[in-house]
Formats: sequence, structure tokens, C-alpha cells
Amino acid sequence: MSTTFPRGFRAAGVTAGLKPSGKPDLALVVNDGPARTAAAVYTSNRCRAHPVIWSEQASADGRVAAVVLNSGGANCFTGPAGMTTVERTAEAVADGLNVAPGDVVVCSTGLIGVWEQQWEDALLGGIPPLLDSLAAAGGQAAAEAIMTTDTVPKTAQLELDGYRIGGMAKGAGMLAPGLATMLVVLTTDADLGADAGATDAALRHATARTFDRLDTDGCMSTNDTVVLMASGASGVTPELEAFAAAVEQVCADLAAQLHADAEGAKHDIVITTRGAASEEEAVTVSRAIARSALFKTAIFGEDPNWGRVLAQIGTTDATFSPDAIDIAINGVQLCRGGVPDEPPELVRFGRRVEVLVDLHAGEGEGTVLTSDLTHDYVEENSVYST
Amino acid sequence: MSTTFPRGFRAAGVTAGLKPSGKPDLALVVNDGPARTAAAVYTSNRCRAHPVIWSEQASADGRVAAVVLNSGGANCFTGPAGMTTVERTAEAVADGLNVAPGDVVVCSTGLIGVWEQQWEDALLGGIPPLLDSLAAAGGQAAAEAIMTTDTVPKTAQLELDGYRIGGMAKGAGMLAPGLATMLVVLTTDADLGADAGATDAALRHATARTFDRLDTDGCMSTNDTVVLMASGASGVTPELEAFAAAVEQVCADLAAQLHADAEGAKHDIVITTRGAASEEEAVTVSRAIARSALFKTAIFGEDPNWGRVLAQIGTTDATFSPDAIDIAINGVQLCRGGVPDEPPELVRFGRRVEVLVDLHAGEGEGTVLTSDLTHDYVEENSVYST
Repeated sequence: MSTTFPRGFRAAGVTAGLKPSGKPDLALVVNDGPARTAAAVYTSNRCRAHPVIWSEQASADGRVAAVVLNSGGANCFTGPAGMTTVERTAEAVADGLNVAPGDVVVCSTGLIGVWEQQWEDALLGGIPPLLDSLAAAGGQAAAEAIMTTDTVPKTAQLELDGYRIGGMAKGAGMLAPGLATMLVVLTTDADLGADAGATDAALRHATARTFDRLDTDGCMSTNDTVVLMASGASGVTPELEAFAAAVEQVCADLAAQLHADAEGAKHDIVITTRGAASEEEAVTVSRAIARSALFKTAIFGEDPNWGRVLAQIGTTDATFSPDAIDIAINGVQLCRGGVPDEPPELVRFGRRVEVLVDLHAGEGEGTVLTSDLTHDYVEENSVYST
Repeated sequence: MSTTFPRGFRAAGVTAGLKPSGKPDLALVVNDGPARTAAAVYTSNRCRAHPVIWSEQASADGRVAAVVLNSGGANCFTGPAGMTTVERTAEAVADGLNVAPGDVVVCSTGLIGVWEQQWEDALLGGIPPLLDSLAAAGGQAAAEAIMTTDTVPKTAQLELDGYRIGGMAKGAGMLAPGLATMLVVLTTDADLGADAGATDAALRHATARTFDRLDTDGCMSTNDTVVLMASGASGVTPELEAFAAAVEQVCADLAAQLHADAEGAKHDIVITTRGAASEEEAVTVSRAIARSALFKTAIFGEDPNWGRVLAQIGTTDATFSPDAIDIAINGVQLCRGGVPDEPPELVRFGRRVEVLVDLHAGEGEGTVLTSDLTHDYVEENSVYST
């Protein structure tokens, strides 16, 4: 299903030999039209990989025919040779599909700063078999070929009034093992017209409220890419607000799957701040808590240490009065009005941990998803590239 | 030596029973004058402990007669009872010394949100023996009584032209195990006059360039306090620039001791950014790298993963061009002009790890000290309060 759930798409995943493990490492999603409307969102990191630099230009005109993705190498800070690899990759895919190279988006994930001729040879050598494998049922194979430290492929699909949305994602940390970039390809057979403005607005709205609020380890990748392609193959032109809501629903589904598969995590932490002066301030407070190494280690130890939550709230410039703050963990009101309330011993821990902060300063509410900081996280990220 | 190295000071450290371990937990440093000029810097966390709220008012007039410090409880977010404890503590010390309560600075460190009558009783009960123990050689005992997860007491002293500076510090993380607040008491027998303006300027300059650039785990305490008291007992009025430089030297010495004793650290990481548009931007870039969980786990694994350094640089708004960035680790030039240079295999690791980034965008330079992210850090911070 995945990206080939909507009509008008084919996909494939093959082993090109980029990963030492010999697992699939090259994927392709093709929009066979009739429309090729698209929008994309890229990392805001100022140190960006060559594929991101290429793809931002390729997608700027709101038209994308195909997305080719590789794991086993981020192609970031690899010099002119790395940029040439991207161009050659787009050209090889474009030739095979009889489209323009400028309509091909390229995504890469893996270690930064690694490029060898042998690596380019393997990548380009994988493209003919990749093209040969393209199939209307290829979405699952594509989703598997983009995995790095992911333990499961992530896919989503949604059937609406006469049209469909599908998607796949990878990522097990925001940049987790020096790689682990988040890559997401979304497809729809809705007819969104040739003007990509509405597609772009729907995608940006959805990513801002889903992937942007997933913050497993505070690290921002050089390669993050989210692409949405619309084939128009359903012949149905959706009401735009409903379409945007549906895209957000699919993104939220994929974000939850990324969250559940975060590297080394033992607890999925859901931090909601309410009563903030604005939604933006609520997200700021939730994110500050999500980035505390001390809070994250406490949750690993199943210690409902609300002092560490409080200390993080205090580092923000959000509107609040310290003596009005409420903090609850898994439904136990540990702090009310800035003083201890229910005893920490009452807190029961499962895989899911819900932190609820009320600032009593307004109506804004925002949730950020994060993971605990565990021995497995340290292990996975300290031994990866050695 | 410590805080009693300069003339005009007495100090003491005793066991009041605040720590379950039965180790010393209550300290006092008294300025016997003739002058009682002082300056202090407090945490910028907006969720502040009661002792910080009290002490900021007490020191605002530039006059401090004594600093009383306890470990075994942060007295933060403990409600009105906690504030009463601070007032009673200051009054008891003031009574014993025959000074005004408003001339007594109070510092606490330990768990947030914990207050019991028994705890206050122990604290107040410890003050008479504390006063009885005051001695001109009491600096070391005071330094030991403020330790929490510190493995060694931290003290420093400096002899200058006719006057002296001494100091003690505690802290093994910025807020490390839900506590581990940084507390620093500095003393001098220099005659700084009754106007605390110059003292304050010297202290702020020194802390901004030393303690503020120590960032072991990115967490900001609710209780951080740095106090400088001047007795004038040497009768020497120092040249202010030389005095400020000397205070900075003592602060740098104490900061290095805090760095070396950071919780669970296996590597002391020194991150210097040069070639920045300003000193401020250099510090911003160094600090961004110091806060990367991925970079810190890589160093734990002795993996010279410069891609993780690069990805952090890219998250800042500092002036730079990605293709001008140089990155070296322990003298090996891993990245030059945005492309891989010397092979990572050449990097040799010891306890000290030096990261040098050159942005080639100006003359600004700034160093931030941090620690690696280790299993011991996770262990220490996940099991602390349970």
C-alpha cells in the first residue's frame, strides 16, 4: 500500500550495495499522472546535503515526476563529487522515465562526509534494476529500502471521498546515528490542479503540526525532506480544507510511527502544555521540556521528577507566573500552583508517558513528542560509525 | 584555604542531617570586615528557588556579611513554608553574628519540590554548631559541606600584590541529578570601597566568560548562585582591571574543576569556535555543538564524527558559509572548506578532547566546555531520586 495506495503511482525498492548489511537501500516513487503537482519541505539546517540543495530547486516549480531515495550515505559535505552524484542520479532516473531531470527529487540518508567512487558506482548501477522493478504494488518495497536504524518500515494510507492519500517515512531519531534523517514521501490521487500553491499550503500546515513537533533528541538533520506528489488520477478535486486535514492525519500517523521507533527509547513521552498565551508559546514550553537530558533520563528511570520539568519551563520566555504552574504526569497532579500536590509515588509508568503542564496564562495548547534518554540510545549512537 | 585564604573571613561546615548519607551538609562563610562590599549573580531561570529570591534582595544593596549554604534540599517550589525556612535560616545566622538578616545570603541545593518540617528542624538545628565551628581555617570544611554528587571539593586561591582572592564551588552538572546546582562563594581581602559597582562589574565579567561557558548537559538550575564578598582586610585597593582579571582567573580555575568532575563524564570536551563574526556568535556555535546529544555520545564512543558537529553548526544563525567551514578534533583536520580532509582514523583520544571550528567569517573566538554523554550519566540521573 504505502505510497502506491493512491492511483497513478508506481514504486520500487532494491539493493544497490550501499549498505554493508546487503539490505535494500534504493527506492523510487513515480507519479504517472495525469497531473504531477507537488510540494516539498526541507530541513531548515543551514548545513544541507547535496540532495537537499538539488531537490529544493527541482521542486520549486511545483512539479515532481519522481522521488529517488537512498539509504547508506547522506551525501552531505562531500564536495563537488557529491553534487555530481546527485545530478547523475536524477539524470539516470529521468532518462528511464522519459521525464526531465529537473522533475526528479533526490533524497539520501546515511553518514555525513562520506563519498567514494565505488559508492557512486553502486548507486548509479542500482538504477536500471530499480526502474525494472517499478510496480503499482511497490510501495512496501520502497518503504523498506529507505530504512536505516528503523526497526520497522513506516507507511500510512487514507481513503477519502473518491480519492486517496498514501505515504512512507523513515527516521529513528532526528539525525540520530549521525544519519537517521527523516525522509517522507506522500502521494495522493486527488486532482489538485496545476497550481501547487494549495498543495504547498496543505503540506506546510501538516508538517508544522506533526513532524515539527516530534523531537526525539533535539538534533536537526542535514537531509530532512518531506515531499507530497498529486497524480490527479482519481479525477476528484477535493475541498481544500478537508484535503489539508487529511494530509495532516496521514502525517500524524507517520509521525507516531517514527516516535514509537525512536532509537533506544523505552518510553514514548507525550508533553502537552495548555493554558499558554498562544499555541506557539505552548509548543515552546513543551519542546524545552522535551530537550532536557535530565528529564529524559528521569523518565527512563521511571522517576516522576517534576522538578526537572519545572526547571525547563523556567528557561523559556513564555508568559507565566511560577506560582500558577500545574504539572501532572500520567494523571497524577504532582505540582499545583507552584507547590507540591499529589505524591510522586502515585505515578504509574507504562510505555506511554503523558506530561501535562498548565501555565494558566491563556488558551494556547501544544504537544511535542519525545523519547527517554536510555543506555540503548547512548550505546547505539556511540558505537555506530566505529 | 578556599574562601578563608583572604584575611577577614571565617568559615565552617557541619552535618545538620539534611543528607541521608550523614555527610556534612551545612556551610557558612562570614566576612568579618572591616568592609562588607559584595556582588552576586543568580540563575536566569524564571522558576527560581526561595533562597535565590531571598538572596537577590539581600545582596541588592552591595553589602553581604555572610553566606549560609546547605546541600540536601533545593528549597525550590516548596510553597510559603519553604520561604519561611529561608527567612528563619537568615535570622538565625544573623542573630549569631550580630548582623542584620538582610545581610545574609542563603543558598540551597538538592531536590526540587521537597519540604518537610523535619527538614527545616534539622537545618535550623544545625546553625548553632555551625556558628560554633567558625574558624579562619574553616574554608575547606565549608567546601566539603556543599558537595552533592561532586566527587571532590572545589577550591581556588590566588595571591596578588598585597591582596588575596579565594573561592569554593560545587556542581557536577548544571542541574544534574535534579539538583547539582552550581554554588560559588568568592572572597577577597582587597579594599573595594563601599560602592559595590566595580565589584559587581568584575564579577559579571568573570562569570560571563567562565561559568556561563561551562555547559555540561544544557540544563539550567533553579538555584545557581555566585557571590563575591570583599573584606578590605588587606588594606590594599587594587587597580580594577587587574582585580577583574584576577577574579576571572579564580572563576576559570573553579569552572575547570567543575568541568573535570561532571557527572558520569569520561571525556572533558573543549569546543572552540574561531573566525566568527563576533565573540558572541563564536560562543553560540560552540554552545550548539556542546548541546548535541549525538555529538556527545559519539565522543563517548571515541568516534570523531564531525558530521554531528557540522549539523549543529547549521542550526545556528551565526554568520558563515557552509563551504568555508573547517573542523578539527584533537589536531586532526577532519573537514576543510566544507569537504572531508584528513582521515578520522588519525584522531587519538585522551580524557581531554579539543574541537576546533573555524568559520572564516571574522575575528570572533569563544570556547565552551562540555562533557560526553555516557552510560554513567544516564545511570546517575535515572536512578537518583528513586
